[in-house]
Amino acid sequence: MMTRIGVLGAGQLGQMLALAGYPLGQRFVFLDTSGSPSADIGTTLVDVQGEQLDAFLAQVDSVTYEFEHLPVELVKKIEQHKPVFPSSRALAVCQNRGLEKALFSQLNIPTPEYRLVNTLADLQQAVAELGQQGQRAVVAKTVTEGYDGKGQAVLRSVEEAEAAWQRIGNRELIVEAFVDFVREVSIIAVRGQDGRAVFYPMAENHHVDGILRYSLAPLPDLSEAVQQQAEQYIQALLNELEYVGVLTLELFQQADGRLLANEMAPRVHNSGHWTQNGAVTSQFENHLRAVAGLPLGATTALAHTCMVNIIGKQGDAAQLLQLEGTHLHLYGKQEREGRKLGHLNLVAADLPGLLQQVTAASQCLPGAPAPVFSFVK
Amino acid sequence: MMTRIGVLGAGQLGQMLALAGYPLGQRFVFLDTSGSPSADIGTTLVDVQGEQLDAFLAQVDSVTYEFEHLPVELVKKIEQHKPVFPSSRALAVCQNRGLEKALFSQLNIPTPEYRLVNTLADLQQAVAELGQQGQRAVVAKTVTEGYDGKGQAVLRSVEEAEAAWQRIGNRELIVEAFVDFVREVSIIAVRGQDGRAVFYPMAENHHVDGILRYSLAPLPDLSEAVQQQAEQYIQALLNELEYVGVLTLELFQQADGRLLANEMAPRVHNSGHWTQNGAVTSQFENHLRAVAGLPLGATTALAHTCMVNIIGKQGDAAQLLQLEGTHLHLYGKQEREGRKLGHLNLVAADLPGLLQQVTAASQCLPGAPAPVFSFVK
Repeated sequence: MMTRIGVLGAGQLGQMLALAGYPLGQRFVFLDTSGSPSADIGTTLVDVQGEQLDAFLAQVDSVTYEFEHLPVELVKKIEQHKPVFPSSRALAVCQNRGLEKALFSQLNIPTPEYRLVNTLADLQQAVAELGQQGQRAVVAKTVTEGYDGKGQAVLRSVEEAEAAWQRIGNRELIVEAFVDFVREVSIIAVRGQDGRAVFYPMAENHHVDGILRYSLAPLPDLSEAVQQQAEQYIQALLNELEYVGVLTLELFQQADGRLLANEMAPRVHNSGHWTQNGAVTSQFENHLRAVAGLPLGATTALAHTCMVNIIGKQGDAAQLLQLEGTHLHLYGKQEREGRKLGHLNLVAADLPGLLQQVTAASQCLPGAPAPVFSFVK
Repeated sequence: MMTRIGVLGAGQLGQMLALAGYPLGQRFVFLDTSGSPSADIGTTLVDVQGEQLDAFLAQVDSVTYEFEHLPVELVKKIEQHKPVFPSSRALAVCQNRGLEKALFSQLNIPTPEYRLVNTLADLQQAVAELGQQGQRAVVAKTVTEGYDGKGQAVLRSVEEAEAAWQRIGNRELIVEAFVDFVREVSIIAVRGQDGRAVFYPMAENHHVDGILRYSLAPLPDLSEAVQQQAEQYIQALLNELEYVGVLTLELFQQADGRLLANEMAPRVHNSGHWTQNGAVTSQFENHLRAVAGLPLGATTALAHTCMVNIIGKQGDAAQLLQLEGTHLHLYGKQEREGRKLGHLNLVAADLPGLLQQVTAASQCLPGAPAPVFSFVK
């Protein structure tokens, strides 16, 4: 009855998957290619040289991953031996911003205007065009890799293009027009092996320096129509990719309510951590139910919940736990500037109460930015 | 920041403690003296011969236990090196039904009438007196050890005493009068290192052949006065024992509402598993918060919850997870008659809905008795 789940990557997402999977009768083997695993649960094979793949395959029934910066060839190779969810095709699309945007367009999912560039001259032209001759900034990103704000440059004029090209270029970049948006939101969906999909209520996300700080859900001012629009977009992606597992779609919401797709992640996502304490079934459990071919659980929100990331410094656990409605999730990592060490899920019966709790929690976390939400005027 | 918790015993309670402790930044080392550990998380030292104690002590910051049938001398020895919660004194009382009953009496906690007996003649006399000359049955139990209905005998007449003495006697027994009770209930309390205590709403428990099958909480027909009475009783025990951690008190409720203490357990308890999905903070997390000297979390019930034990046969996980509001908790054990393999927590917004779910779940579990609750007429 025990299902052995192989996980590519061995960080906090893997750890939280394992914690959610134990009660389903699952056990976990992690393949870490970074040399610095932190999952610290189940079995971890550290495999910087690529010599442990056979040992890994011998110990698992099916395979998933906790981060998308994996060689697609590795995942294709694994697929020849064990079921992999999500598939290598989904991975290939999600790890290349060019393919991702092309898929969005193909499925009629609106995005900010963008250009793919391979040379400095093309970058300069894209900055001029998308920036409307200096009227607005643009963002250039490496097409592959790069996350949490790494591998990105914000350009306010054509003159800044050369320095950006030196720093992150010399390879394909995607250049995107900055759009006027009210807020960043995300939708998390899960599709089972039977093709049925479930959707969580959308969250509003706040980043500082490219790192997520706060996610709040459900949203008091998000219309049912907008939630359904997001569900349609992500459903189209799930169907096209014959996706199994959790898929996250990050979007910008504009003043008129419309959504523009930013990017997607083929995995459990930081903006879905609130579901651990704020939804009937967490994103971690639902991902594993999908991977194991089990029926998916309800995604209904239980209350008003805000996820607060713990970055760089851990803060005082006793002080944090004294706050009402606080659920602490530490990853067991050493403190280091900019590092995700854990998160809090704050849960409250009403929104004003929640906002008070978030403010109180942020004051207990060294270096945490003041929480600002778009719906608080 | 990482706290290393040592756990004496390595069964499912230890496993669920570890799953609740990871997010608090805790890691776990189990000392298993049975030779058949099943926790399967963290580090397990199998130590049937008693040779691993030093290795265990070297790896832990503080120690707790998941079952009470431990040599008190072992725990006293550990206390000389590391903090142990609950203390060896609490353990000594809880593992001896004679000391336990004496403590109940000392603290004015009412119990069924009882006698301690050391000989067959005393047993016969106790059966005659407590059984009111054959008017009612009595139960004889070994003073130490015995759980899940083992080491017990129900006697309906003095004539049955000799066979019972042969089977479970030849050592001290406690003989208790059967009382007319409406139901079995339990209260779970947690006391922190600062002396503050929190209490969960009481649960109604249904046993079959001495094995717990259903626990339901909160109770629709339990008055606030009865809840407070139970809290007073358990608070007296916590104070007297200077207790730290989860303490469980099982009680009989009589037709007039009054409570009689049956027994207590110095640990997280099967009748508190509903708190994993039905309360703000689970009994497991609160036990570990207490052990680590952290503030305790709220014990408020989130909804109507029923815990259904999975005994002997595992049932079909996919079928169970298809039921609304179902949370599955498998322990990763092989099927065996009478063995606790896992449990379900069923959660519903209203009681009629919950009772329907419980009936549906019981029909998916091979050999599960039909659920019967005292408040359903």
